[in-house]
Formats: sequence, structure tokens, C-alpha cells
Amino acid sequence: MPANMKLYSWYRSSSAWRVRIGMAYKGIAHETVSVNLLQGEGEQHSAAFHVKNPMEQIPVLELDDGSFRLTQSVAILEFLEELYPAPALLPRDMRLRARVRQFVEIINSGIQPLQNLKLQQTLTARGVDFTSLVQGFIETGLRALETAAAASAGTYLVGDHVTLADVYLIPQLHQSRLRGVDVEKFPLLRRVELACEQLPAFQAAHPNAQPDRPAA
Amino acid sequence: MPANMKLYSWYRSSSAWRVRIGMAYKGIAHETVSVNLLQGEGEQHSAAFHVKNPMEQIPVLELDDGSFRLTQSVAILEFLEELYPAPALLPRDMRLRARVRQFVEIINSGIQPLQNLKLQQTLTARGVDFTSLVQGFIETGLRALETAAAASAGTYLVGDHVTLADVYLIPQLHQSRLRGVDVEKFPLLRRVELACEQLPAFQAAHPNAQPDRPAA
Repeated sequence: MPANMKLYSWYRSSSAWRVRIGMAYKGIAHETVSVNLLQGEGEQHSAAFHVKNPMEQIPVLELDDGSFRLTQSVAILEFLEELYPAPALLPRDMRLRARVRQFVEIINSGIQPLQNLKLQQTLTARGVDFTSLVQGFIETGLRALETAAAASAGTYLVGDHVTLADVYLIPQLHQSRLRGVDVEKFPLLRRVELACEQLPAFQAAHPNAQPDRPAA
Repeated sequence: MPANMKLYSWYRSSSAWRVRIGMAYKGIAHETVSVNLLQGEGEQHSAAFHVKNPMEQIPVLELDDGSFRLTQSVAILEFLEELYPAPALLPRDMRLRARVRQFVEIINSGIQPLQNLKLQQTLTARGVDFTSLVQGFIETGLRALETAAAASAGTYLVGDHVTLADVYLIPQLHQSRLRGVDVEKFPLLRRVELACEQLPAFQAAHPNAQPDRPAA
């Protein structure tokens, strides 16, 4: 097992939240380092952090005192799944596993990049009404997910066990609300969210439970 | 083995191109169905295609006469890797495999969603200079990849065997040029591109080699 696992996170980051859920679900001991994305110019743009991730994004996972460093939530969660296979976050059945990865990518590449902070800052600076734009992208993605999950869902998005699809769904629904999207339009996704909210790992990974969350 | 494998593709689509490379590299027999993203309103928005993918995007992979359908290039390529493990497109070493997935996602979620057709159409309609915007996102992503790959590259992005990272790189470099990015700023990426261009699978999957490419 690798030593000194360290996760660079921020309580409000959806992408870091995904990894927090995965690590809590698997019970992986680690240190969390807070990177405040809105402090000053954003700590992710500091020279020290740029070395850790030239994309200047969190999450970053560090192993073995930083000698191995990994970025991108999908790459991190697939790696943790291989390193700590139980409890599993991917189904054993090959086609179900593919379905989970499809749902992950609907959110990870289909929605999240269009709601990210950098795009928001860039477009707002150019006078674009970012809120209505991003709402359209989020609703298209959630509708696709709601439709596709009708054929796969049990208690969770794919069957009756938590998978990476749920790990991606929960932060996305939270972010969707912050963007003014009415998530009640997606009853299946909401039902899965309620089921996930019962689980200790999802509770522990929630932004409100993070030590770097400012006092209200 | 599944019967009647069908790939919904379009010669110009970067995401479909990735899957074409993977299938050609593994020698997977399949039928290709062309979906013209610019014909009329775009064939991907037709009612018939919406059923196949509510995200109204290609690629879509169909198996067993359409009884199993998969979207999202990452999910499709991971599935094909499991179904046809040789020749491999993911390294055996767990950390190298993670590195490949990281590079895949730098392109798949870090660059591609910000250069996609729908965002371009939406922002152009709102008077945004999309070209300069997208160039910034592409250059940030390619620079991150160039930096990170310095530690992993051999002949290809991760070592001396073709991986999914290369499968994602080649269409991205092509798309970067179309967007006016000077890819010569990234000599390592260019070197890997030249190596890939020597390989029959990459040649067969190129847009210029597709039957649905209009005559010049």
C-alpha cells in the first residue's frame, strides 16, 4: 500500500468532492490539503500548486511523499478502485461497468467542464449571461442521465449497489441547484440522491462537513 | 463475443475518431453508420438518433442488434479494452494505467467539451469571439499535457507502447490546428503524433480515410 496519501481538495469543488466520496466509501486513510479556489487570484494558480498540476485544478492525489502524483477525478477514482477493490465502486458485470462509466462521463465531460469556474469567469468578463447558458447544459445532461438510468437503476443509478455513477451524481445535483436548475424535474435522480444521503460516506464527504468550510 | 457491432460516427468528429482508432488498433470488425453533425439542423438532433443518445452526440456503440448501446468515448474504449484485451491500450502497471487515464481526461474533460460544436454555436450566437476563447483552453490543456508527459513519454505519451492517451492526443492535435493553435509549441506532443501517424490503425481512422468524407 502507498504511504502518506494526500488529497488536495476544497470543500466547494465538485471534482474534489467526488474523490472525497470515493475515499470515504472505501475507508482510505489520507491527509486532506485545502486549496482555496477563490482566495486572492485562486491558490490553484500559485507557482507551488502549478507544479502539482499544470492544469491548476483540484483534485490532486499524492502518494509516497509526493513521488507519485495523479490528477483528474476519473483517473484518481479508477486508480483507487484498482488499489482498494473492496468495497467496489464498479460492478463486476462488464456491461454494467460500461454503463457506470458512461454515466460518469455524462457528468464529468458532458456537464462539469461547462459549469467550471474558469469558463464562468472568462465568459462573465465578456458579458455573457453565464447562468442561463450553464442551466441549458446542465438540464440537457441531467435529462440524458434521467432517461438512460431508467433502464439501469435500482436503489442507485446502476442497480442496488453504490457505483461511481452515484459518486458523480451527488455533487452534480448540488451544483445544479446552486446554478438555479430545478432538480425536481428529474425524479429518478432525486430518488437516488435521497438514498445516497443516507450513507455515512456521502455524509462525510459533503461540503458542509469539510474542515476548510468557513464558519457561516 | 457480441454480434453486429455498429459504430455511429462522423468523419470530422474528434470523439468518434478516438473510437475509430481504438477499434482499428484492436482489429474489431464492425459496421460504421454516418451521422452528419452539420446536415440541416444536425442529424444527431433527429428523433431517431435522440433515442440512441439523449445527449445527441456521437460516438454511439451498438451491440447485439442494438439491444446494448453505449455512449461516451471513454466508456466505449474502456469496454472494448475489457472485451478485446489484446493488443492492449492500457499498460499493465497500475500507476502507468492511472497516468494514461489522467492524460485521457486532460483531453476528454479538460479540453474537448470547451471546443465542442454546441458550445461554439451557442456562444457565437451570443456574439462571443469563440476562436480566441477556445484557443486559450486548448493551449492550457496541451501545455499541461506536454509538461506531464515529459516524465512518462517514450515513443508514445506513456512509454513505448500505444495507449489510450495517444488515441486521444491525435484527434486533439488535429482539432487544435483547425482552431488556429500553433501545435509546434508542443514538441513532445508533435513527436508522438509523428510516431502515431506511422501506424496503420491511426491511418485507417483518420478523417481523410472515412467513406463519409465528402469529395474535395
